[in-house]
Amino acid sequence: MDLPAFSRGILFWRNRCASSLRGMFFSESMSGTFYAVSTGPAGADFITLGAVRVLGRCPTIFYPVTGSGEGKHIAFDCVCEAVDVSGKECVGVRFSMSGDKARTDAEYGAFASRAAEYLEKGDVAFVSIGDVSIYSTAARIAKIVGQMGFRVEFVAGVPSFCAAACSCALDMAPGLGDEIRIIPGDACYRSGALGDVLSSPGTKIFMKSPRHLGEIVSEVVSRGLSGSAHLVQGAGGADERILTGDALAEAGADVFGNAYMSVLVVGV
Amino acid sequence: MDLPAFSRGILFWRNRCASSLRGMFFSESMSGTFYAVSTGPAGADFITLGAVRVLGRCPTIFYPVTGSGEGKHIAFDCVCEAVDVSGKECVGVRFSMSGDKARTDAEYGAFASRAAEYLEKGDVAFVSIGDVSIYSTAARIAKIVGQMGFRVEFVAGVPSFCAAACSCALDMAPGLGDEIRIIPGDACYRSGALGDVLSSPGTKIFMKSPRHLGEIVSEVVSRGLSGSAHLVQGAGGADERILTGDALAEAGADVFGNAYMSVLVVGV
Repeated sequence: MDLPAFSRGILFWRNRCASSLRGMFFSESMSGTFYAVSTGPAGADFITLGAVRVLGRCPTIFYPVTGSGEGKHIAFDCVCEAVDVSGKECVGVRFSMSGDKARTDAEYGAFASRAAEYLEKGDVAFVSIGDVSIYSTAARIAKIVGQMGFRVEFVAGVPSFCAAACSCALDMAPGLGDEIRIIPGDACYRSGALGDVLSSPGTKIFMKSPRHLGEIVSEVVSRGLSGSAHLVQGAGGADERILTGDALAEAGADVFGNAYMSVLVVGV
Repeated sequence: MDLPAFSRGILFWRNRCASSLRGMFFSESMSGTFYAVSTGPAGADFITLGAVRVLGRCPTIFYPVTGSGEGKHIAFDCVCEAVDVSGKECVGVRFSMSGDKARTDAEYGAFASRAAEYLEKGDVAFVSIGDVSIYSTAARIAKIVGQMGFRVEFVAGVPSFCAAACSCALDMAPGLGDEIRIIPGDACYRSGALGDVLSSPGTKIFMKSPRHLGEIVSEVVSRGLSGSAHLVQGAGGADERILTGDALAEAGADVFGNAYMSVLVVGV
């Protein structure tokens, strides 16, 4: 169900975005809302009071389980620290996080169908680390669920790069004219644009660099930028680690072992 | 007191950033920590449990008062909704928000000296809307306070552009290779780079456009981009307003009256 005639050109008010308008065509008593809930990067300290409130009233909480190991569900760990989940149905969902779009689309579609069964009974939360509007699985699933006709709402959170910058007490835009770029590291490296990006003005935040973080750091160092660069691993978490200056320049290959959860901030 | 030999090339661990290291040379019992605390964009829903915890233990809370009117202290209103401030010393600080750097530097310096008097007695929080690492007065003051030798910590929060995107249920990076640019609107417009920026790939977030938001929106519309653009005023607040599509194209001058608190997201 899609309502382009309704969803275009309308003066929206709070919580009256396109997906909500679609949702208004369903009886509240017959179907719930799909909440894409941001938990922040790590631990209960980053979760918002709004997220706590929404999670408190959702009878079902889905959480992503990544990687092959057990216990790797950062978002759900945040939730459990902040919300009493006893009495709720909490369901881990494994996604392959494959680079193969057809495969991930199939996984997301399958999960959306599963979520729909729960939505017929009530509200559902799908939790995601960081903020759900930025590189999140939650947003991609929410789009499918919205297209299925369910009401969708996003609950904003602290993105990992803000946690990373704050851990370093960094002012990412010291001048009111300074730009901040959030750059997918692997894609930037592969495109050959890294040099141009590093020589552009403003603060550069590299995320999503599981494969090429080492090469990106090498380029930063070779350009003499390590003094204004901070590599933050596991931003905000108990095992957070920050490298800058000479330590960043001298970082060995082992530093890049958990590159997926690393944020590299190259300041102005 | 500055310790470049200590603050460069060190393998930092959580909360061991340069300013914290400086702070370690002061007796904890003799001086407090300056906490730059993010409150998110509007209302208690966006404040984090970590911010609540820090604010709860700070005997002094400074909050910025902007504009000429009474009661315009969004950050402090968030705090009061989330934290019991009775028994705390809560002090409004007026900044001119002038474009004159010499004037603002003088104001920040004067405030830092005032904050130092409180820091000799205990912890101090300076609250700021959004996230303190992005275009915040808090970060600029924290730098001065850190240079004076006090321990500084940033408490991360929800930036206004995440709240804006989430209110619209926007996926700002639907592809893992998509870049997101946070652009100071007025500076971009004045530089003549707006056209190039709008034709670049990725999502563009325009902030800090108090003077030229109307011209920026006109350029977005004339390029046929209004269908993928959302103008969010007062993101996350009770009076939030969202314009997109034809409504954005037809927006009159009155829409841009509160341009300073507006975020324009032009999606991929």
